[in-house]
Amino acid sequence: MKRLIFCLLLLSNLAHADDGYRLWLKYDLIKDVAKREEYARSCQFIAVSNQSPILKSAADELQMGLQGLLGKSIPIVASAGSRTGGVLLTVSKDASADPQQLTQEGYRITSRTTINIASKSDKGILYGVFALLRQVQMGQPIANLSLNSNPKIRYRLLNHWDNTNGTIERGYAGESLWKWYELPATVDPRYRDYARANASIGINGTVVNNVNASARFLTAEYLEKVAALANVFRAYGIRVYLSVYFPAPKTIGGLKTADPLDPEVRKWWADKTNEIYKLIPDFGGFLVKANSEGEPGPQDYGRTHADGANMLAEALTPYDGIVMWRAFVYKADPKADRFKAAHEEFTPLDGKFDKKVIIQVKNGPIDFQPREPFSPLFGNMPKTPLSMEFQITQEYTGFATHWVYEAPIFKECLESDTYIKGKVEASPEPTLGKFVVRGKDLPVDPSTVARVIDGSLHGYKMTAIAGVANTGSDRNWTGNPMAQANWYAYGRLAWDHTLSSEAIANEWIKMTLTSEPKAVKTIANLMLKSREIYVDYNTPIGLSRPWSGVHFAPEPWQEKSARPDWTAIYYHRADSIGLGFDRTATGSNALAQYRPEVQKQWNNPETCPLPYLLWFHHVPWTKKLSSGRTLWDELCTRFYTGADSVRWMQQQWAQVKPAIDPEIFADVTGRLATQHKEAIWWRDSWILYLQTYSKQPIPAPFPKPERTLEDVKRLSEIYKLR
Amino acid sequence: MKRLIFCLLLLSNLAHADDGYRLWLKYDLIKDVAKREEYARSCQFIAVSNQSPILKSAADELQMGLQGLLGKSIPIVASAGSRTGGVLLTVSKDASADPQQLTQEGYRITSRTTINIASKSDKGILYGVFALLRQVQMGQPIANLSLNSNPKIRYRLLNHWDNTNGTIERGYAGESLWKWYELPATVDPRYRDYARANASIGINGTVVNNVNASARFLTAEYLEKVAALANVFRAYGIRVYLSVYFPAPKTIGGLKTADPLDPEVRKWWADKTNEIYKLIPDFGGFLVKANSEGEPGPQDYGRTHADGANMLAEALTPYDGIVMWRAFVYKADPKADRFKAAHEEFTPLDGKFDKKVIIQVKNGPIDFQPREPFSPLFGNMPKTPLSMEFQITQEYTGFATHWVYEAPIFKECLESDTYIKGKVEASPEPTLGKFVVRGKDLPVDPSTVARVIDGSLHGYKMTAIAGVANTGSDRNWTGNPMAQANWYAYGRLAWDHTLSSEAIANEWIKMTLTSEPKAVKTIANLMLKSREIYVDYNTPIGLSRPWSGVHFAPEPWQEKSARPDWTAIYYHRADSIGLGFDRTATGSNALAQYRPEVQKQWNNPETCPLPYLLWFHHVPWTKKLSSGRTLWDELCTRFYTGADSVRWMQQQWAQVKPAIDPEIFADVTGRLATQHKEAIWWRDSWILYLQTYSKQPIPAPFPKPERTLEDVKRLSEIYKLR
Repeated sequence: MKRLIFCLLLLSNLAHADDGYRLWLKYDLIKDVAKREEYARSCQFIAVSNQSPILKSAADELQMGLQGLLGKSIPIVASAGSRTGGVLLTVSKDASADPQQLTQEGYRITSRTTINIASKSDKGILYGVFALLRQVQMGQPIANLSLNSNPKIRYRLLNHWDNTNGTIERGYAGESLWKWYELPATVDPRYRDYARANASIGINGTVVNNVNASARFLTAEYLEKVAALANVFRAYGIRVYLSVYFPAPKTIGGLKTADPLDPEVRKWWADKTNEIYKLIPDFGGFLVKANSEGEPGPQDYGRTHADGANMLAEALTPYDGIVMWRAFVYKADPKADRFKAAHEEFTPLDGKFDKKVIIQVKNGPIDFQPREPFSPLFGNMPKTPLSMEFQITQEYTGFATHWVYEAPIFKECLESDTYIKGKVEASPEPTLGKFVVRGKDLPVDPSTVARVIDGSLHGYKMTAIAGVANTGSDRNWTGNPMAQANWYAYGRLAWDHTLSSEAIANEWIKMTLTSEPKAVKTIANLMLKSREIYVDYNTPIGLSRPWSGVHFAPEPWQEKSARPDWTAIYYHRADSIGLGFDRTATGSNALAQYRPEVQKQWNNPETCPLPYLLWFHHVPWTKKLSSGRTLWDELCTRFYTGADSVRWMQQQWAQVKPAIDPEIFADVTGRLATQHKEAIWWRDSWILYLQTYSKQPIPAPFPKPERTLEDVKRLSEIYKLR
Repeated sequence: MKRLIFCLLLLSNLAHADDGYRLWLKYDLIKDVAKREEYARSCQFIAVSNQSPILKSAADELQMGLQGLLGKSIPIVASAGSRTGGVLLTVSKDASADPQQLTQEGYRITSRTTINIASKSDKGILYGVFALLRQVQMGQPIANLSLNSNPKIRYRLLNHWDNTNGTIERGYAGESLWKWYELPATVDPRYRDYARANASIGINGTVVNNVNASARFLTAEYLEKVAALANVFRAYGIRVYLSVYFPAPKTIGGLKTADPLDPEVRKWWADKTNEIYKLIPDFGGFLVKANSEGEPGPQDYGRTHADGANMLAEALTPYDGIVMWRAFVYKADPKADRFKAAHEEFTPLDGKFDKKVIIQVKNGPIDFQPREPFSPLFGNMPKTPLSMEFQITQEYTGFATHWVYEAPIFKECLESDTYIKGKVEASPEPTLGKFVVRGKDLPVDPSTVARVIDGSLHGYKMTAIAGVANTGSDRNWTGNPMAQANWYAYGRLAWDHTLSSEAIANEWIKMTLTSEPKAVKTIANLMLKSREIYVDYNTPIGLSRPWSGVHFAPEPWQEKSARPDWTAIYYHRADSIGLGFDRTATGSNALAQYRPEVQKQWNNPETCPLPYLLWFHHVPWTKKLSSGRTLWDELCTRFYTGADSVRWMQQQWAQVKPAIDPEIFADVTGRLATQHKEAIWWRDSWILYLQTYSKQPIPAPFPKPERTLEDVKRLSEIYKLR
């Protein structure tokens, strides 16, 4: 990125086009001269006494960033001496000796005659440097700063579903960033830029390979390659983790079994772990998908998830590494409700996991749908740390074509109240946003999913969050330039889940696209509405999973698959009477996995909020909903207004043209055109198909689709051709 | 202060870092001021009267190139008027009204008071512009120029084995350049740079999809996407072609058959072709892999390759498009010799193909091995135009890791004498490299493969050449920066196969890497030796195909596969007696497919050149070869000196460091380190395996491998793990 900045400076007479490579770390010259000089007066030097790799990264980044933003070169010195007007980077164990305590990775920025970035750790300094740069990038004042910031979650990870052959499962932005055939000898300079981008938003770990894991990664040959990545990431405070293939002791160890209770198997994992730590002393640990979607696991030997996870934890005992065991499990049982599977398998194991194990739970009970209720596991394993798995890559939200800002998806789940500690009654006059304590039995704060994840609800010592990455080898990292915001938002929320979707959007826009106020407002509005628009034309009122095999083409009519729970009809349950999955007591009773207060919200079809309605109820076509429309009319209204809202997005985007780099503008304009075409395709597919059950006309004022059900079916078939 | 200086030095280094994106079209400022000013005096303006898209591309390229090279902006004017000292771009039908006739795409550059680039076509002007820029890039004089150049082959194509999902079959430089999900609305600016690079070396067509073709490309939805690419390429004289899936009339047409003699099928193809030409008026035509490696074809209906090809030709009759039908066929018969298959299937069809059909033949009879004898089809289908298929991507030559300059591979085939018109006796005193005519019955020139391909031998009207592309989404296009030279060399040879490997290497190095004379010489020497070095450690003395499934890991012991001709032992035939495939009369007699003069070269194991020996003979281990060593000792010598030569390559490369961009230097240094490691792996795999048959010791002075056969087998197994 350093290189690119200079190339751009040198070639500034040739073009202003932006290929998106620099993400939100643009560091372009601030145009307002007065402001620039004001910043420059406070940033005349960077003082750092120590030369650890992470501190060097921090000082270099600050130097490079300020050089770009202020247009002058800022010296790095070992000591400020008696000089003022510079930036001090100070690691100090005493940084916590005051009321607002810093945790290990937290930072404090104070400024008077000098700007002091203080932390108990080198990593905290690095995060503080990015925070200071963010202030400058956003044009905020840096005089009289007093910023304190601690991460709310300890392990903040990206999960890469990347394969040895360079493909990415559910990747839509090119190939894997990791070039396994070239490593370890050839180290792509891009790895460093990847680390910088992650460090800038507080991400401190990365699982480099797919959860559908290849055993290759545990061979000596591949561990060397992984170590070469770790060597780059280390200077940015990022630890490397590996997804492991559970039967590896058989496939590469030559053992006859992978039974987690077999002593030879346990020894194999212990030896392998020792081998890894010799190469990568700060190795983070293992992520495991076992007995899930055909992946082998401990149940193949009559053992439990706990047996499997605890075996790996034992191997990690000598080291500072953890086991992240995924709860994404379900059986191919046509009579069962997949919604209930993870809760059924995992809650009986609560308390049986080693203290190095954390259970990684997807936000919803199914699989990263555009809208899902929160997983009923959250709150229901009080003796076991649970971590959150969000999906940043847009597997079910339009690949790299559709513009869906995901912070509202993440926030919706994090802010959901599990009611694990009962109902919190807000004070009629809330002070400072806090809740009033009514008595010993009443909790102070609601039992949100966020408080499960950040450990505060059950007092977990270990807290973690994972985002399935949307990065790839595309020059702009994420395919759709607007999807960079999802990577950014995930990182910012992993650090502090109380940030608002809007605040994060504003940060990202100003650093990445433009600081022109009207354009910032227009784009932020687009971002904040984008997810609801997508849901409306794609899966409104609680619909889910109407996709064909690649999760791209609409196929609500799909009724055959290798497994019943991989068909579309399994989920929407359309019939002559109505639509939706009855998960009340008359149906699968999945609702019983939630607390009574939650059940009360969703149990009654009359009062269940429309966004969740078809998740829990089979609703007759002519049933009048709370909107005043029948189900059928409400569906049509959503599909039509949703698709039409993409036109509104196009119009809004057209207005910001003068404020946006022309290459980025053209790119997004093209994607919105495709999104509009596909939104209408989605709308037509659903409506034409559901109409065969509802037998209802399309209500005024909406026109009939211009094609038949056969037409849209044919369109979907294209995506099944080799 | 020291630190500050260091940082500034670091930054100034980074300012020059080169990510390889610009390929050989760098246009960096010429450092020699006198030279720059000399050029500038001749290039004060660009005059072009017409504004066709291709002429606009030509003028824009010249302007951009000269601006970069000379550091000043050059105006484009409609007419030079009476001014001199500029560059005139002149399309003129009269450009051929002189002795050295120009063909349609040829160009002439003359310079006195002005530089005149003349051609009969806009495309010729574009090629002339790149030729002029090349002169300047290489520091050659441009005063008193008199360059005439005509392409020797009419259709000069890249073949992309790219799939709809973004993967590339045998691609080692990232994903496909074509972003199918985004097209047609989003048009990556990179498509234009792809077209520029190709036009600069004279490539005038591109087959955008894999020969193992998806029927998707013939759907209305995908044709729109292909048309969007064609719209970009057209301004650079590049036509788009499609690989077609032969049963498409069934899979997407809904017909019950794809029988090429069925009237409905013929109508379907005619209609589809009309549909294509409506969208892409300059569409180039179809490439077909049929009845080959499991792909369906006309033989499924009892028809011949000619029936299939002629049906497509009929559909193309109203248009200026062609059918390229591949001769890459072989049956899974353990008793047959795959070497003979294409000749056996295709020579009986000579003269039976429509005039729009050209048969595309791989350079060798097997499959793009590091060294193969030329295909016996060349010269043996005098009534049918044959085109050449070279592989640029390094499927069998070390992926993107090993440095193999391929011009010598291409040249070796092109210069092979088929002796179709008998033996040419060179004059004892050759004049100007020409051969003396001894009498009416003796040909003027040898019947080289090149003269089959360029049409001069049999008077083909249609001539074509295809290179399987090594491009991908990697920033530097080809993964290994040195592999850019293979794309370049292919294009240059497609234009003029008489260019020498060395001349092309020099051009490429000077335009791409450095003009420092000693470095140019060192790198050219490395390039010219690289292929022989690879052959020595990989497949010496005529060995072939010792690869595991992905064609990466050595697996000479592989004896099981879905087909017998997909095992390694099928090819090398090692046993207790010796090694090699007997293709003489005592064996498969494949040699009989060649002319007697060729047979004479290769038929006798005593005189057969060592590079081809094991292609044609099963040689006893202890047999003394022309080198004076036994077969076993010669093999060991090749494997050891080959692997050791990679160390020499590393040392040579280290010497050019001061002359090379640091990022490129580091990248290649890393790849060479891996290449060396893998060369030893190859050596050890072959030697340890063959030793189980030869029972011979490794001759002095070579040390025994440091590992066992089991060790290297285990290493290969890694590449078969998921």
